[in-house]
Amino acid sequence: MRIVVTNCNTTQEMTEEIVRGARAAAGPGTAVTGLTPSWGPESAEGWLDSYLSAAAVLDALRTYHGPPYDAVVMAGFGEHGREGVRELVDVPVVDITEAAAHLACLLGRRYGVVTTLDRSRGQIEDSLETAGVARNCVAVAGTGLGVLDLAADPGRTEAAFLAAAERVRDAGAEVLVLGCAGMTGLQRVVGEKLGVPVVDGVGAAVKLAESLVALGLTTSRAGSYRKPLAKRRAWGPAPGRP
Amino acid sequence: MRIVVTNCNTTQEMTEEIVRGARAAAGPGTAVTGLTPSWGPESAEGWLDSYLSAAAVLDALRTYHGPPYDAVVMAGFGEHGREGVRELVDVPVVDITEAAAHLACLLGRRYGVVTTLDRSRGQIEDSLETAGVARNCVAVAGTGLGVLDLAADPGRTEAAFLAAAERVRDAGAEVLVLGCAGMTGLQRVVGEKLGVPVVDGVGAAVKLAESLVALGLTTSRAGSYRKPLAKRRAWGPAPGRP
Amino acid sequence: MRIVVTNCNTTQEMTEEIVRGARAAAGPGTAVTGLTPSWGPESAEGWLDSYLSAAAVLDALRTYHGPPYDAVVMAGFGEHGREGVRELVDVPVVDITEAAAHLACLLGRRYGVVTTLDRSRGQIEDSLETAGVARNCVAVAGTGLGVLDLAADPGRTEAAFLAAAERVRDAGAEVLVLGCAGMTGLQRVVGEKLGVPVVDGVGAAVKLAESLVALGLTTSRAGSYRKPLAKRRAWGPAPGRP
Amino acid sequence: MRIVVTNCNTTQEMTEEIVRGARAAAGPGTAVTGLTPSWGPESAEGWLDSYLSAAAVLDALRTYHGPPYDAVVMAGFGEHGREGVRELVDVPVVDITEAAAHLACLLGRRYGVVTTLDRSRGQIEDSLETAGVARNCVAVAGTGLGVLDLAADPGRTEAAFLAAAERVRDAGAEVLVLGCAGMTGLQRVVGEKLGVPVVDGVGAAVKLAESLVALGLTTSRAGSYRKPLAKRRAWGPAPGRP
Amino acid sequence: MRIVVTNCNTTQEMTEEIVRGARAAAGPGTAVTGLTPSWGPESAEGWLDSYLSAAAVLDALRTYHGPPYDAVVMAGFGEHGREGVRELVDVPVVDITEAAAHLACLLGRRYGVVTTLDRSRGQIEDSLETAGVARNCVAVAGTGLGVLDLAADPGRTEAAFLAAAERVRDAGAEVLVLGCAGMTGLQRVVGEKLGVPVVDGVGAAVKLAESLVALGLTTSRAGSYRKPLAKRRAWGPAPGRP
Amino acid sequence: MRIVVTNCNTTQEMTEEIVRGARAAAGPGTAVTGLTPSWGPESAEGWLDSYLSAAAVLDALRTYHGPPYDAVVMAGFGEHGREGVRELVDVPVVDITEAAAHLACLLGRRYGVVTTLDRSRGQIEDSLETAGVARNCVAVAGTGLGVLDLAADPGRTEAAFLAAAERVRDAGAEVLVLGCAGMTGLQRVVGEKLGVPVVDGVGAAVKLAESLVALGLTTSRAGSYRKPLAKRRAWGPAPGRP
Repeated sequence: MRIVVTNCNTTQEMTEEIVRGARAAAGPGTAVTGLTPSWGPESAEGWLDSYLSAAAVLDALRTYHGPPYDAVVMAGFGEHGREGVRELVDVPVVDITEAAAHLACLLGRRYGVVTTLDRSRGQIEDSLETAGVARNCVAVAGTGLGVLDLAADPGRTEAAFLAAAERVRDAGAEVLVLGCAGMTGLQRVVGEKLGVPVVDGVGAAVKLAESLVALGLTTSRAGSYRKPLAKRRAWGPAPGRP
Repeated sequence: MRIVVTNCNTTQEMTEEIVRGARAAAGPGTAVTGLTPSWGPESAEGWLDSYLSAAAVLDALRTYHGPPYDAVVMAGFGEHGREGVRELVDVPVVDITEAAAHLACLLGRRYGVVTTLDRSRGQIEDSLETAGVARNCVAVAGTGLGVLDLAADPGRTEAAFLAAAERVRDAGAEVLVLGCAGMTGLQRVVGEKLGVPVVDGVGAAVKLAESLVALGLTTSRAGSYRKPLAKRRAWGPAPGRP
Repeated sequence: MRIVVTNCNTTQEMTEEIVRGARAAAGPGTAVTGLTPSWGPESAEGWLDSYLSAAAVLDALRTYHGPPYDAVVMAGFGEHGREGVRELVDVPVVDITEAAAHLACLLGRRYGVVTTLDRSRGQIEDSLETAGVARNCVAVAGTGLGVLDLAADPGRTEAAFLAAAERVRDAGAEVLVLGCAGMTGLQRVVGEKLGVPVVDGVGAAVKLAESLVALGLTTSRAGSYRKPLAKRRAWGPAPGRP
Repeated sequence: MRIVVTNCNTTQEMTEEIVRGARAAAGPGTAVTGLTPSWGPESAEGWLDSYLSAAAVLDALRTYHGPPYDAVVMAGFGEHGREGVRELVDVPVVDITEAAAHLACLLGRRYGVVTTLDRSRGQIEDSLETAGVARNCVAVAGTGLGVLDLAADPGRTEAAFLAAAERVRDAGAEVLVLGCAGMTGLQRVVGEKLGVPVVDGVGAAVKLAESLVALGLTTSRAGSYRKPLAKRRAWGPAPGRP
Repeated sequence: MRIVVTNCNTTQEMTEEIVRGARAAAGPGTAVTGLTPSWGPESAEGWLDSYLSAAAVLDALRTYHGPPYDAVVMAGFGEHGREGVRELVDVPVVDITEAAAHLACLLGRRYGVVTTLDRSRGQIEDSLETAGVARNCVAVAGTGLGVLDLAADPGRTEAAFLAAAERVRDAGAEVLVLGCAGMTGLQRVVGEKLGVPVVDGVGAAVKLAESLVALGLTTSRAGSYRKPLAKRRAWGPAPGRP
Repeated sequence: MRIVVTNCNTTQEMTEEIVRGARAAAGPGTAVTGLTPSWGPESAEGWLDSYLSAAAVLDALRTYHGPPYDAVVMAGFGEHGREGVRELVDVPVVDITEAAAHLACLLGRRYGVVTTLDRSRGQIEDSLETAGVARNCVAVAGTGLGVLDLAADPGRTEAAFLAAAERVRDAGAEVLVLGCAGMTGLQRVVGEKLGVPVVDGVGAAVKLAESLVALGLTTSRAGSYRKPLAKRRAWGPAPGRP
C-alpha cells in the first residue's frame, strides 16, 4: 500500500526527515510518499501559521498528481486541516496528533505531550479535545525551542525535552508524546532516559493508517465528513497581486 | 470607531448583506467596513471550505490597505480562523459564532442553534466548545438549505428555520441563535413567531466589538495569541501554476 | 437608555463607587441609576451573606419606584440572585460575574479571577459554572482582603491583587478578571503592570446590557425564567419581631 | 438526637406533612422538629421564590430558640440556601435534593427526578451539579402540578407522577427521585407501580443527617463554609415600610 | 438488622479490624458479620489484585451460608466488584469507596482521599467516577505504605497520612477520606490534628446501608443490575490443576 | 510476532470464532493463539460474569505455558480485566472495546456501539470512559440477543443489529462498533447495508497490538501499571470445597 505523508510546512528538509520516520515505522509492503505544500509557512508555530498550513496542505492534496495512494498521514502536531482532508480524499486520514494520543492511551492511564513553543499548547489541547482523546492527557508542555531549531543542536533539543518531560511526569503522565513532527527519532533515546514509553506521532499515524487500510475501513460519509460540494473556489490570490 | 467585518466567502452580495446587518446593530459612532476575501470558497459549507476560508480571510486582513480600524468582526458561523486573526491584528476580534452564544447565555438557561446544512453542525459544536461557551448549548440543527439558498426564497427559508427551531426547542432551548451570517435579518420575524429571543451573530459581534473597544480591551499577548513570528510564508501558490 | 445597577450590599459608598465605574463604561445615551438594598449585609462575603443579599436585591427591585429602566446590572461578584431577577423584570439582566467572564473569553484562551477572601472562591466558581462560562477559567484566587478593606488602603489592595494575579497567571490565565465590584477602577493600573487585559465586571456588564437593549433582546420567558407566579409572599419578618 | 427540619415555604400544613415524612424515616432515638419560616413564599416555585426562601430559612434558623439540635434537614427540592446554612450552624446540614441523589446513586447506575412544574427543572439541575451528584442523573421531568396542588387531588398527583416517570425511565433512569418535599409519602405506591426504587428526599436526608451525627462528623470549616463574619446585617426591611 | 461486611482480601486480622470499625459505627439494632474470602490476594494493591478480589468476594457471597442479612458493605477502597454484588444479592450494597465520598460531599465543597500506595490512585479515581461522585474530589494521594504495613507501626502510619493529607489540602480539599479499609479508626486522631472532617469509608458504608434498609430501599433491577442469568459458571480452576 | 487472544468466557467455539476473526485481520508475519479460560462463565453478560471472567482470564495468562508472545488482545466487549493484564504481562495489551473506539474516532466525528443485551450497556460505557475514548460515543444500544444466541440464527442477528444500528445512527453516530467479540465477521455485511464504516473490535485490537509491537512500545511501568507485588494469592477456592 502507499501512504502519502503531508508535511504542514514548506521546508523540504523537514519533509524528508518525516518521511524517514514514517518509513522506519512502515510495514514491509508500505510505500511512503512525502508531500510538501508548495505554499504556506516554512514552519507552523501558532494559529495563523496553522490555518495557512491547513489550506496549503488541502491544496497540495487536491492537486496531487503522483501515484495512487491508500491513506494520508498528516504530519503537523496540533495543526489544523484534518477534517477537511477527510472530506477531500476517499482514503483513511490520520493526523499525527490524534495518532500519538490513541496509542498513548493504550500504554498508560494518563499521558502528556512535550512540544516546541509554549504558544502551540493551546492548539494541541484543542486538537486532542475535538479528536476525542483529550480525557487522559494531563499536560502539554513546551520546550521553548522553535520547530526549525530542533535539528540545529540535537543535544540542546534532548536536554530541553527532558526538562519539559519532567514537568509532564510530575503532572501524572505515565506515557509521553513527542509534540512535533520534527522530533521524530527522538523517542528511543529519551524513552530510555526517562524510563517511560515515548510515542512518536509520525510512526503512530503510519501504523494506524496501515491498520485502517488493512481492515478495509475509511472515513464515514454519513454526517460530518461528506464530500465537498461542487462550487467555485479560488485556491490562492489571483496572479499579479502585488 | 471603525469595525472591519470579514465575510468568510467570496460572494460580494453576501458581504453587503452582512454589512447591512452589522450597520443595523452598530452604534451611532461606529463605521462598518465590509471585507470580502479575494480568494476562497463562494460559500463555506464544510471543513474544507472552512479551512480555505480561514487562510483567505487572514490574507485579506494581512493585505488590507483601507482606513485604520478598531476591531474585527468575523462573519462566518462555525468557520475557522478566529485565533489566527487574534494573533495577526492588534485590535479586538469577535467571531459571530461565539458572539451569538455569549449573548444567548445571558437570555436563557439553555440555547440552541439553527444552521444551514447538517454537515456544518460539527464545526459549530467544535467552535462553541473551544470558545468556552458550549456548556449551555443543547442542540445544533440544520435546515437543509445551503448558504446561497437562504436568500433565494425567503418564505422557504423561514419555514425551514421554524421547523428546525421546533426540534431545538424540544431539546430544551430557551433562546435561539441564527447559525449562518446569511440569516441576518431573520431574527425579528422568527423570534415573534416562536416567542423566544433569537440572536443574530452579526449584530451580537458588532455590539461585543464595540464593547471591548469602549472598555479599552484587546486580545492578550500572554500565552496563546502572541504575534506571528517573522518567517517566510507564501500566501497561495506561485503564479503560473496551472 | 437607563440601566439600574444594583449593589449587593447596603453600603451606600460602595454603590456610589460602582455607579462611578458604571458611568465610566456607559455610552453617551445611557443613564445609570444606583440601587442600594434597604436591608441585607453591609458586605457580601460568603454564602449566608449572598443569599441574604439575593433576597434584598430582589426586594429592592420589586419595590423600586424610580424612573423606568431598560436593563439591570447586578453588581456583586459571585453573589446569588441573577436568575430570580430575570424572572422578576421584563428587561435584560446582566450579572457582573458572568459579564466579566464573557468578555474575558473573547480576549484570551484562558482566564482567571482575583477576588477578595478565599471563602468567596466557591461561590464564584459555581456562578461561572451555572452561567455556562466556567470552561475557560483556570483559577479563582483570593487576595485575603475583605470587601470593605479594598478602599481603605489602595496601595495594599494593589499589592495583594498583583500577588494573587501571579498565581492565577501561573495556572495559565491569559486574561484577568476583577473578582469584586469594589475593585472597579483597578483594571487599568494592574493591567499595565501585569501586561495582560484585566476585565472589570461592572464595566463589562454595562456594555453587555447596552448591547442587549440595542439589539432589542430580553430574557426568554420559555422555560426557566417565567414570570413569578401570583401567590402570597412575605418579604421580611413581620414588624415588631424582636 | 434532634433534627430540625426546615420547610422552604410558609405553609404550615406542608411543614406538618414534611415532619410526618421525616418522623416515618427517623430512627427510634431521633426527635424531629419542624421549622416554618415566618416569612417568604407560601410555596417555592422558581428562582425568585427560591432566593426569598433561602433568606427566610436562614433567618428562621438564626432566630430559632427551641431546644438544641444535632442536625438540620432542609426540605425544599432544588431550593437555595444549603451552603449558607452550613456556614451558620455548627451541626451537619443535609438538603433533601442532594440527599435523594446520594441514595439514588447507591441503588442504580442512573437516576432521574420527577418534580412539580417544569420551571423548577433548572434549579434542580444546578443544585445537583454543585452538590457533586449530577453525573448519574439522566433527566429531571415536571408533572405540571404546582407545589400546593399536590395534596389537593392525590389521584391526579399519582397519575401525573407516573406519566412523568415514564419519560424519565425512557431516558435511562433505573431509580426515581421524588422532586418535591410535598411528595413525601408517594414513594411506596409509585415505586410498586413502576417496579423501581423511588427515593424520597425527606427520608433520605433524615437518614443521612442521623448518619453524620452518629459518626461525629460535621461541616468542614476549612475553605468554603467558614463561619459568617461579624458585621451589620439587616434581615428584612425596616418596620413601617409601606 | 444484619449487615455482612466483606473484606476484599484473605487476611483474617484485617477482617476483624474492619468489623470492629463497622460495629463502632453501627446502630444499636445492627449486627455485623465479617466475611473473609476463602481465596484471593492477602491484600489488594493494584488492578490484578483487585480483579482477583472481586471474583473471590462474589464467590464468598454466593456460597455464604450464615444467617440472613439485610445489606452488604464491601470493604476494599477502590476495589472492584460492587456492581456484580448488586446483581447477585437482593439487599442493598454499599461500597466503602463511594460511601465515604457521598458523606464527604455533605461536609465540604471539595474532598480528597489519602490512600496507601500510589499505584492505587487510578483505581480509586475510576471507582469514584463510575459511582458518580468524583466531581468534587480534588486529589487522591498515596502515603507510600502498603495495606499490611498500616497496622505495623501506627506512628509511622499517622505521620505518613498527615504528610499526604497536606498535599490533598493544598489541592483544595476541605474534607478528607481514609482511602483504605485498614485505616479504620484513624479518622479521629488525624481529624483533630488536621482540623478538618475525616471520613472513614467503613463507618460511612455501615450508616448508608442502615439508611437504605430503614427506608425499605434496595438495588433497582431495571437496567444495569438485573439478576445474573442462569448459565454454567466455574468459580475457580478444576481441582487437581497443578 | 505472536499475539495471544484471550476469550472472556469458557466457550471454546467462541474462542475459535474470535481467532478466525483475529487471523483475518492479522498481518502476514503474525501468529494468533487463542486462549480460553479454564474457568469462568460460559458467556459474559453482566457485571458478575465480567468480574468472574476478569479473574479467570488473568489466571489463564498467569498459568499460560505456550510459546512466547509479543502482545495480548483481550476479546470481551466491555468486560473487565484490562488493567490487571497490563500489570501482569510485559507486552502490550489491547482490549477490543477500546480498540474499536480508537479506530472509530479516526473514521467519523461521532460513533456508536451495538451490543448484545441491554444490561451490558453500562459496562461498555464505563469501559470506554476509563479508557479515555468515550467523548465521541453518542450511544450504546442493545440488540436483545444474548452472546450465545448470536451464532444460532445469523439472519435474526443481522436483523437485530440493523434495528439497533438505526437507533444509534439517529443519535448521531457516523461510525458503528460491533459491541461483542461474537459479532466478529458481521462488519462487512452490515456496513454495506448501513452505508457507514463498521468497526470490529477483534480486528481493531489485532492491528493496534501489531502496531505497538512494531513500534517497540509497551505498557508504562511508571504509575498505574506497575508489576504486581509479590504476595500470597489463592487463585480459586481450595480443592474439595463442595
